[in-house]
Amino acid sequence: MTEPLRIAIAGLGTVGAGTVKVLREHADLLAGRCGRPLEVVAVSARDRDRDRGVDLSGYAWYDDAATMAAEAPCDVVVELIGGEGGMAHAVCETALRRGRHVVTANKALLAHHGPALARTAGETGAALAYEAAVAGGIPAVKGVREGLAGNRIDAVTGILNGTCNFILTKMRNEGRDFDDVLKEAQDLGYAEADPGVDVDGTDAAHKAALLAAVAYGTPVDFDAIPVEGIRRISSLDIHYAEELGYRIKLLGLARRAGDGLEVRVSPYMVPLSAPLAHIEDVTNAVAVEGDAIGRAVFEGPGAGQGPTASAVVADLVDIARGNMPPVFGTGLDTMQPQRILTADERRGPAYVRLMVVDRAGVFAEIAAALRDEGVSMEAVLQHGRNPGETVPVVLTLHETDQAALRRVLDRINSLDAVVEPPMMLPIEPL
Amino acid sequence: MTEPLRIAIAGLGTVGAGTVKVLREHADLLAGRCGRPLEVVAVSARDRDRDRGVDLSGYAWYDDAATMAAEAPCDVVVELIGGEGGMAHAVCETALRRGRHVVTANKALLAHHGPALARTAGETGAALAYEAAVAGGIPAVKGVREGLAGNRIDAVTGILNGTCNFILTKMRNEGRDFDDVLKEAQDLGYAEADPGVDVDGTDAAHKAALLAAVAYGTPVDFDAIPVEGIRRISSLDIHYAEELGYRIKLLGLARRAGDGLEVRVSPYMVPLSAPLAHIEDVTNAVAVEGDAIGRAVFEGPGAGQGPTASAVVADLVDIARGNMPPVFGTGLDTMQPQRILTADERRGPAYVRLMVVDRAGVFAEIAAALRDEGVSMEAVLQHGRNPGETVPVVLTLHETDQAALRRVLDRINSLDAVVEPPMMLPIEPL
Repeated sequence: MTEPLRIAIAGLGTVGAGTVKVLREHADLLAGRCGRPLEVVAVSARDRDRDRGVDLSGYAWYDDAATMAAEAPCDVVVELIGGEGGMAHAVCETALRRGRHVVTANKALLAHHGPALARTAGETGAALAYEAAVAGGIPAVKGVREGLAGNRIDAVTGILNGTCNFILTKMRNEGRDFDDVLKEAQDLGYAEADPGVDVDGTDAAHKAALLAAVAYGTPVDFDAIPVEGIRRISSLDIHYAEELGYRIKLLGLARRAGDGLEVRVSPYMVPLSAPLAHIEDVTNAVAVEGDAIGRAVFEGPGAGQGPTASAVVADLVDIARGNMPPVFGTGLDTMQPQRILTADERRGPAYVRLMVVDRAGVFAEIAAALRDEGVSMEAVLQHGRNPGETVPVVLTLHETDQAALRRVLDRINSLDAVVEPPMMLPIEPL
Repeated sequence: MTEPLRIAIAGLGTVGAGTVKVLREHADLLAGRCGRPLEVVAVSARDRDRDRGVDLSGYAWYDDAATMAAEAPCDVVVELIGGEGGMAHAVCETALRRGRHVVTANKALLAHHGPALARTAGETGAALAYEAAVAGGIPAVKGVREGLAGNRIDAVTGILNGTCNFILTKMRNEGRDFDDVLKEAQDLGYAEADPGVDVDGTDAAHKAALLAAVAYGTPVDFDAIPVEGIRRISSLDIHYAEELGYRIKLLGLARRAGDGLEVRVSPYMVPLSAPLAHIEDVTNAVAVEGDAIGRAVFEGPGAGQGPTASAVVADLVDIARGNMPPVFGTGLDTMQPQRILTADERRGPAYVRLMVVDRAGVFAEIAAALRDEGVSMEAVLQHGRNPGETVPVVLTLHETDQAALRRVLDRINSLDAVVEPPMMLPIEPL
């Protein structure tokens, strides 16, 4: 096959313009790599007159992206509009129904509608590719779905949100508070004016859902994933993490556990011996544990024009070469629904920070609460004394059931001497 | 397509047995992932009676692997015999000529005969897959050839030999000498009785040649690659590296430079700020710089039964799914021969350690030699004085031409006060 792969691009923001740029600059290189040209034939965006830094004059322009997906003379539609439904969904659905391949960077859309879109793609024989939706430029989906296809995957753990990792890195390096660093991240363009999707863990959860789906060949119920962001992390916790030999990282993970899958997004204490502890600033990384390979780690830029365009174009190259692996790693008829564990079903070590009034007998009450639920302490840190004042007490706990730990923390929270709700972070012994 | 992919395996050593094991244990998982079963139909090895820990009774046995490659009723031949020519070459050549796909872990064979075998594969439409030949289980070939296919690759840099990395890590952590640690590595099975292929850099050079070929779409003349191993590294150098903020790593690299490619294997001083500085023990890693993505790093186990089998099976999954990208990343007709730079053509910073008799005037002679060739010093370390005795003098040099530096070192070496040949290590500002 030497005919061009004809491409229509819906959405000409940073990533859309970057994709056009890469396809133009590397036209010859890509034709050699694919054995056929990759040719943009149509584009669609709301504002026709904006300067996007690339020449779009040679392409058919559609004001309506869904119309383009239906009518443009193309083989592939690249969806870079964003959003979990609406126009992005209409574009993908329309293209796939017509047997047109779809490449998208839209994690929200796929986390919610991925299985349904995959079925549509399966019916018409179209590809649904989404490397850019997970960990930006890093070929993480490819790494799991193809590179490690010989493995039963036991765990996938990732630093999947650059904004959160940047904030946590800054908080640690500069001893600053969350709100303060968030503001700087916003000024630098690393965080949105409305930062909730990033700092509350939603974005990481979208990506974790996709990694779980592709690693385990299962449709993931996004709403079942326990998600917690980084707003509650204080500089005290960062400080204690260092002292205990950990770093706090927002992780998205998907792990075989009991009769189901533990899929979860949360700030974790990660030991310094783990590769993910050393991923800093806006860098993303995905660690994959498989039964044959042991562990592989993929690391790189998780966002930005160039990296995201790199992933979009890689998907286009795959399609041009005829590489269309199953959307979620296994044939649709062999996908297995799996139960997502609730937060309470986690079992593992944990870090707890209490703010207590420094007076005699408090620690005995805390110890009794732990004992009554069979929760076992590994270490206690209580630096200095300050009778009558509020002081932090930090505990690390051995492997414990989260449900029992929650009951312990409820009871501790009800103690008079405990002046704010306990802070708990799971420890991930990667 | 739902017929089985029929597989014949030549060579039943550790990796061959591991591959059979993975294919048996994960038969259902793999069938789901490929949409068709992966079925071993034939095997070949010299010793029929050896216990390999897997049941081979269901497979046709061939005493002669080339006969199997020609005659077994198979779609793919997996070559795990090893060696740069001989039977391994005959097996691959025979299979490809008949249009049978080949999967191999044989870096020596491909470094020498890769382009010729790729042409044969091209003529018959067969795949020639070799993920296991580079960096063990890490999907590095896939990462470069597919995952980063949207990029013009600027540099590929890898820790590609686990034995050398293990030795260098131990030397540093335990302050021990090369010979001493080599012996331990041999006792642990990390190094061969004849360690030359590893510690002299040949194995890393095979892998660097393949990475260069796939990253730049070029046939690489293996014999043109400057190769140096780690035998000359002393514990003094390790010590000074630490003091200067570097780690010594055996790197294989391939970089666009001037009118050609710098492909090289050498111990390098790597700054602690570089991800590769932190890859320890037998772990491998490949850092890829591309114009769109910036930098991605792939990390994991570089050898061993499970990891290597993981890569072999990934290649089989690709073939079963019909994913057969160009052997060296671009169509045969678009491959561009490129000149490999000689060692003297390198330009970059460097570390030099001299062993000199501590007496007045020596340093002036050294400084004059540098000055006369226009080589500029960044730092000098000369700890303590010991008049009349031999002491180390360490220099770090700014970006300099290796040819000029070689002339400087020849002149320094001829000084009476210099008692052994200067040690030079390139500094890689990754």
